[in-house]
Amino acid sequence: MRIALSQLNPTIGALEQNLEKVKESYQKGLEGKADLVVFTELALPGYPPRDLLNYRGFLDKERALITDDLMPLTAKTGVSILIGANYRRGNRLYNAALLLENGELKSAHLKTLLPYFDVFDETRYYTSCLERKVEMLGELPVAITVCEDIWNDMDYFSEPLYDRDPLPGLFAQGARLLINLSASPYHYGKHALREDMLPYLARKYDSAVIYLNQVGANDELVFDGSSLVYNNRGELLYRAPADREELFFVETDNLFKPAGRTVPPDRDDIGTVKTILEMGTRDYFAKTGFKKAVLGLSGGIDSAVVATLAAEALGPENVLALLMPSPYSSEHSLEDAKKLAKNLGLDYRIIRIDAPFETFIELLNEGQKPRMDVAEENLQARLRGNILMHVSNREGYLVLVTGNKSELAVGYSTLYGDMAGGLALLSDIRKMMVYDLARHINTVQGRKVIPERIITKPPSAELSPGQKDEDSLPPYKTLDPILELYLEKNYSASEIMAEGHDEETVKKVIRMVDISEYKRRQAATGLRISPYAFGAGRRMPVTRGFEYY
Amino acid sequence: MRIALSQLNPTIGALEQNLEKVKESYQKGLEGKADLVVFTELALPGYPPRDLLNYRGFLDKERALITDDLMPLTAKTGVSILIGANYRRGNRLYNAALLLENGELKSAHLKTLLPYFDVFDETRYYTSCLERKVEMLGELPVAITVCEDIWNDMDYFSEPLYDRDPLPGLFAQGARLLINLSASPYHYGKHALREDMLPYLARKYDSAVIYLNQVGANDELVFDGSSLVYNNRGELLYRAPADREELFFVETDNLFKPAGRTVPPDRDDIGTVKTILEMGTRDYFAKTGFKKAVLGLSGGIDSAVVATLAAEALGPENVLALLMPSPYSSEHSLEDAKKLAKNLGLDYRIIRIDAPFETFIELLNEGQKPRMDVAEENLQARLRGNILMHVSNREGYLVLVTGNKSELAVGYSTLYGDMAGGLALLSDIRKMMVYDLARHINTVQGRKVIPERIITKPPSAELSPGQKDEDSLPPYKTLDPILELYLEKNYSASEIMAEGHDEETVKKVIRMVDISEYKRRQAATGLRISPYAFGAGRRMPVTRGFEYY
Repeated sequence: MRIALSQLNPTIGALEQNLEKVKESYQKGLEGKADLVVFTELALPGYPPRDLLNYRGFLDKERALITDDLMPLTAKTGVSILIGANYRRGNRLYNAALLLENGELKSAHLKTLLPYFDVFDETRYYTSCLERKVEMLGELPVAITVCEDIWNDMDYFSEPLYDRDPLPGLFAQGARLLINLSASPYHYGKHALREDMLPYLARKYDSAVIYLNQVGANDELVFDGSSLVYNNRGELLYRAPADREELFFVETDNLFKPAGRTVPPDRDDIGTVKTILEMGTRDYFAKTGFKKAVLGLSGGIDSAVVATLAAEALGPENVLALLMPSPYSSEHSLEDAKKLAKNLGLDYRIIRIDAPFETFIELLNEGQKPRMDVAEENLQARLRGNILMHVSNREGYLVLVTGNKSELAVGYSTLYGDMAGGLALLSDIRKMMVYDLARHINTVQGRKVIPERIITKPPSAELSPGQKDEDSLPPYKTLDPILELYLEKNYSASEIMAEGHDEETVKKVIRMVDISEYKRRQAATGLRISPYAFGAGRRMPVTRGFEYY
Repeated sequence: MRIALSQLNPTIGALEQNLEKVKESYQKGLEGKADLVVFTELALPGYPPRDLLNYRGFLDKERALITDDLMPLTAKTGVSILIGANYRRGNRLYNAALLLENGELKSAHLKTLLPYFDVFDETRYYTSCLERKVEMLGELPVAITVCEDIWNDMDYFSEPLYDRDPLPGLFAQGARLLINLSASPYHYGKHALREDMLPYLARKYDSAVIYLNQVGANDELVFDGSSLVYNNRGELLYRAPADREELFFVETDNLFKPAGRTVPPDRDDIGTVKTILEMGTRDYFAKTGFKKAVLGLSGGIDSAVVATLAAEALGPENVLALLMPSPYSSEHSLEDAKKLAKNLGLDYRIIRIDAPFETFIELLNEGQKPRMDVAEENLQARLRGNILMHVSNREGYLVLVTGNKSELAVGYSTLYGDMAGGLALLSDIRKMMVYDLARHINTVQGRKVIPERIITKPPSAELSPGQKDEDSLPPYKTLDPILELYLEKNYSASEIMAEGHDEETVKKVIRMVDISEYKRRQAATGLRISPYAFGAGRRMPVTRGFEYY
């Protein structure tokens, strides 16, 4: 049997547009002589549809497209479809894989394990199905599963999240091939986990494995494709690309033969992060209908990296840089920003904020001079935010936020100022990784696209004379590891200190993180690349007692 | 037996501070000769603790306070405690009611039904427990339940949310009293539902019912207390207040006698909404450590109502009004705003935005005159946002957002402009209900605190000459019912039209709602008073296909 696997990039909720993609892909499957064409989890709604699932009309329409469009195709051509879809039974909703054959629904495979952690909310919408049956595809008994279903092996994981695992039952029924329809977003380390766990399952159950993953970004989530095929020895036969759609074919006979050649191990490094950020940016623009980005270019490292990524993702002709010096901006910052814009081929405009700043000072200080307090620092950032939003509103640019995860974590940023914008590229990238990205960019370009001084000078917001980040914050090489432990590993203060960090610093950092929750509540959507990003996956109370857990 | 019921107002995460309240309340219970003192769901963490539950150190500390502080109290005094708490078994977490007796944990009653809809995320943290046992309190067999446990009666609800109901099993074991530890937030209509469903259960099971609810606000959620006691005939014996803490006593003997007197039906009307908004405001300030509020007073109805509620909640001496007219502000608006401020006894400052507006126009229009486009309208709103935030940053005021739910729904508001601030009082109140509030305020005050012209004049943002809301939006009396159907009842466009609404209007409104999701993502925390508010309970994708479901 010949199976076509379709790694597609859907837009959430765009049922008809996604249907067109599915049909085009199916047509290519036909042309490639497939007997079956397979699509990812919730292929027509796109994953995650979230509260769109509360609309009965949405579910009705998806169902109608499957019944009226896809089923008749399988009758006409004799080629089957396996597709992730919503499935209703009574007043319960299931996340299902539907096998469409000869114009009919041959079987529905209803997801057992519903992820509920981090960004996932499936228990909010779906009922778990405990009965799972093997499907015969020709002569081959197949375990058809949906995403999380395969991620609870009781031997592989030391702390499995769920009490059940649907796989032993399916393999007890004789399955020889595991097909998994996924929509699994990227975070660093995930490639390695997949490429360790999937061959483990293949060997454990003496079964071939086809893992088909969604590609492309939806809001903060970037799905990294990288669909995988293993033979029953756990040898990798194929890996699809991480950053684009692809239709590929598998002959089931080959799934039970030695691989013959070795697919090199997956690269999941700073280069992957760059790829993910660029895809995330490209898709956010494409799917919201924007073409052009504007950002404030300060001459610092964060905006330099954002400008570079945006130029790569959208084309330099679609990125506008605003250089908005204040009385406290250094000369070298303006120079560095100009140089970067030229290196990237960006249009830029210089709009000094001196005049509005002076007008506001006149108005707010009752004719007195600047007081150089935090309020005036924030004011400068907000005047820049005003200008960026003005260009956005008048000329149709989407504003990119340039802040990084470290500063967002400790609240070292101005609400409505440098936090203003539609998409934050670095809000899940800690400062030290921003440097890694900058150096990586210069390495792959083979030239100093990002001027060296931007990378080497001490970080500064330049909102008061001679200001440095380290005046207010611990050095980033101290701060970042503490943030990782507190935010991603949920360590308490004492556990962080036990890792060798100084008590005063730890408590200061935790307090800064805790009291700036209100800022993050109003932050722009930010691309997720860690297992625990700010945004949809973080559900932390704003008003809460401050105790150092 | 004499039971003391403690309706407390916890601060999320403030374990030690909440423990102090619990101990004080317990002491009063002792003084009142109680045999048992009962507390609400998750009494020490406060509800909802959300991602604080991801911190093992947090759970350890709660457990330590129970073991080291509360249990010894029960040994010392002989008076038991029934308290909502987190309970770990292996690597699973349960939402439990713990009975502490004579220095020991006598029994743990683990919640079966875990709410997952709207603002609730309990399946994210907790495991459901299916085995439930009746507890003997003296001679009395008692069904001890936690919040959602009692809300799935298969006869009462036409579409029960869960497949199970723990009550029939508990009553089959002979329970004569149902005790429910709740943390159930207010939304309009909920009082009536409670006071219908609870006596239904009392009659169905011939059982007395004690419903004990948390009071006070945490972020957007306002818990409305109103704890209830019913005898086994379903007659209401007692209702606690909606807006404050209370310790009250119940003699179990009296639970099985006729009521003797009739408690009047609960008032749940615009007055309740006002109470809830004031408590929500008061607690947000108290629990974030702020004392003083600042808001922009435009002379329109929304800011008038917010100023009035804030003055009531915080005291007029703690509310500062900024009157920030632009070249397009009408004379009467400034007059009305001043009159309102005087009526309320608020300090106010007049800060015209003409000068910064002119400076920006000079800067952004390259010396040309205003173009009167949307960008310039937004600019005015953002200049006001700058000033409010400046006063906040410099003088320690928290900025109140004055926008209503109707405009937030259709995106008729400026991000970082009138949307700037820490707490939105009206973001779940549709415009027509804002008018109801205004009229109600004047009625209960017995004077026109809110000047009549503010209520009667046509709504306008006054961002361009002669502008009216109805130039851009359907009249609110048309808009609001469409929003209710689309946002709270999840009707599709065709279902809304079937209710008698015009196709063009419906599609326009839905499109406006859909394309302004990105603004709401960055909106301030807003007090929730409907069953489906913007904020934590809304999980709607930003980048999505636009189709009129």
